[in-house]
Amino acid sequence: MELGFLGLGRMGFNMTLRLLRGGHRVVAWNRSPDKVQEAVAQGAVGAASVAEVVGALAAPRVLWIMLPAGKATDDMIDQLVPLLSKGDLIVDGGNTNFHDDKRRAAALATHGIGYADVGTSGGVWGLQNGYCMMAGGAPNDIARLTPALDTLGPPDGWLHTGAVGSGHFSKMIHNGIEYGMMQAYAEGFEILQASEYDYDLAKLSHLWNQGSVVRSWLLELAELAFKQDPKLEKIRGFVEDSGEGRWTVLEAIDKNIPAEVLTLSLMRRFRSRQEDTFTDRVLAALRNQFGGHAVKEK
Amino acid sequence: MELGFLGLGRMGFNMTLRLLRGGHRVVAWNRSPDKVQEAVAQGAVGAASVAEVVGALAAPRVLWIMLPAGKATDDMIDQLVPLLSKGDLIVDGGNTNFHDDKRRAAALATHGIGYADVGTSGGVWGLQNGYCMMAGGAPNDIARLTPALDTLGPPDGWLHTGAVGSGHFSKMIHNGIEYGMMQAYAEGFEILQASEYDYDLAKLSHLWNQGSVVRSWLLELAELAFKQDPKLEKIRGFVEDSGEGRWTVLEAIDKNIPAEVLTLSLMRRFRSRQEDTFTDRVLAALRNQFGGHAVKEK
Repeated sequence: MELGFLGLGRMGFNMTLRLLRGGHRVVAWNRSPDKVQEAVAQGAVGAASVAEVVGALAAPRVLWIMLPAGKATDDMIDQLVPLLSKGDLIVDGGNTNFHDDKRRAAALATHGIGYADVGTSGGVWGLQNGYCMMAGGAPNDIARLTPALDTLGPPDGWLHTGAVGSGHFSKMIHNGIEYGMMQAYAEGFEILQASEYDYDLAKLSHLWNQGSVVRSWLLELAELAFKQDPKLEKIRGFVEDSGEGRWTVLEAIDKNIPAEVLTLSLMRRFRSRQEDTFTDRVLAALRNQFGGHAVKEK
Repeated sequence: MELGFLGLGRMGFNMTLRLLRGGHRVVAWNRSPDKVQEAVAQGAVGAASVAEVVGALAAPRVLWIMLPAGKATDDMIDQLVPLLSKGDLIVDGGNTNFHDDKRRAAALATHGIGYADVGTSGGVWGLQNGYCMMAGGAPNDIARLTPALDTLGPPDGWLHTGAVGSGHFSKMIHNGIEYGMMQAYAEGFEILQASEYDYDLAKLSHLWNQGSVVRSWLLELAELAFKQDPKLEKIRGFVEDSGEGRWTVLEAIDKNIPAEVLTLSLMRRFRSRQEDTFTDRVLAALRNQFGGHAVKEK
């Protein structure tokens, strides 16, 4: 099929490559033009502007946006709408909040423009292994995307999850689960590391991936990390988060679901960015007040 | 090699089968003799008593115990000691606490009897896929066990983890991690299930196992569970624990490690067994006391 691809970042560029290798015609645009040139070198049709992307596609068009969630994606849609025709389809493959999907789909419908949300997992390994995709949208819109989704994913690598928003919603929960799993492994490795035994954590990770209950892709990645740096001495324990974990917790609160481990896993990331917390200063001060327990002075 | 196998429960019986299929000579004993007959039918040498097991083996012997952790295993070792000779080796393949391993190894050493602890994962799938084993003990003792371990595991399926106790210690942490991972998936599925979208959780589990960050064996098992019962309407949310999760938390406390998610995952299992908690009655009573908030009467 042919499609316009807007945003050639770490994910978008590799997805474009996979689409090109799958024989699709991709008209590619990126804010910084060097990435467009790289895509052209790989077989893409380069576009210097969003209008050029639209002009290079035959209607009804498919425009795949792969930009940071929020304002960047909203601005792109605003820019696209006056350029598009009835029957065109916008796909948001980024990490968008499902509430935004629903709002946008309703607004675009008034112009006769379709909207699909494709939650995409796979990270830097996606080019090689294929992307795992959760696609939300109307059945006929998802049907139009099927050739591209088949190329981007491994076998069985995508699912029509339901109505608009359901793709990003399930990707959000996927990432929330990922936070909890990572935290579980991390705590376990810390106890092993502090034990009286001298474990080779790379070998233990490898072992656990041979038929044990905790085998997983994350554990394969842990093996790689421990092979590179057995005690992780070269990195700081400072952990960012990129949104979906927060939204998962907000959704749990909205639905009164005690998602305790997913919430705590997010909070532990916040804690990883603090060095000396006000909470702990309050605790130390109170122990000092009621019991005369010594405080450590700054 | 030849070895005595003591305990033909759910794990032990299948491990015996795997050893027999691997060409080993297994002298098998079990408290209830019907399991011994089943093992004999599969090629084992049956023994009506522990003494008979020892008598049917040439010294230096290997005795593999696969009994419930704690008293049952301790009693078996007490029974074995007067029957064994210097140079014999006792293997505990159960879910023993590593403190018990260290105590036993020291006591058996005074009799010249070796001791190895083999933490074993694989559950009911082990017969087919092989068991993942963490083996703690002296290098020469583990070397003696190697033919059996090679048969019991898949390729790369066992590791000499270190000194006595290190096998069960790492199996304990393995299970602690398992609690956390399971809790993360479970909370994620609850939010999906409560959402405005009508997810097919079996299909979503299958999808996530195709190249997504959260793919794992537990997720393959989740797919099977959701296929059998899409909304899990046939089972109660009552979750047992079998010891290692508790020990993981005790070890974290002993070493001052904030293993928050592993701890919380254990506590959520305790909560799953309560219907109306005293904690919640206290909360309701206090809200009523300070704010006049209505309480639900029994």
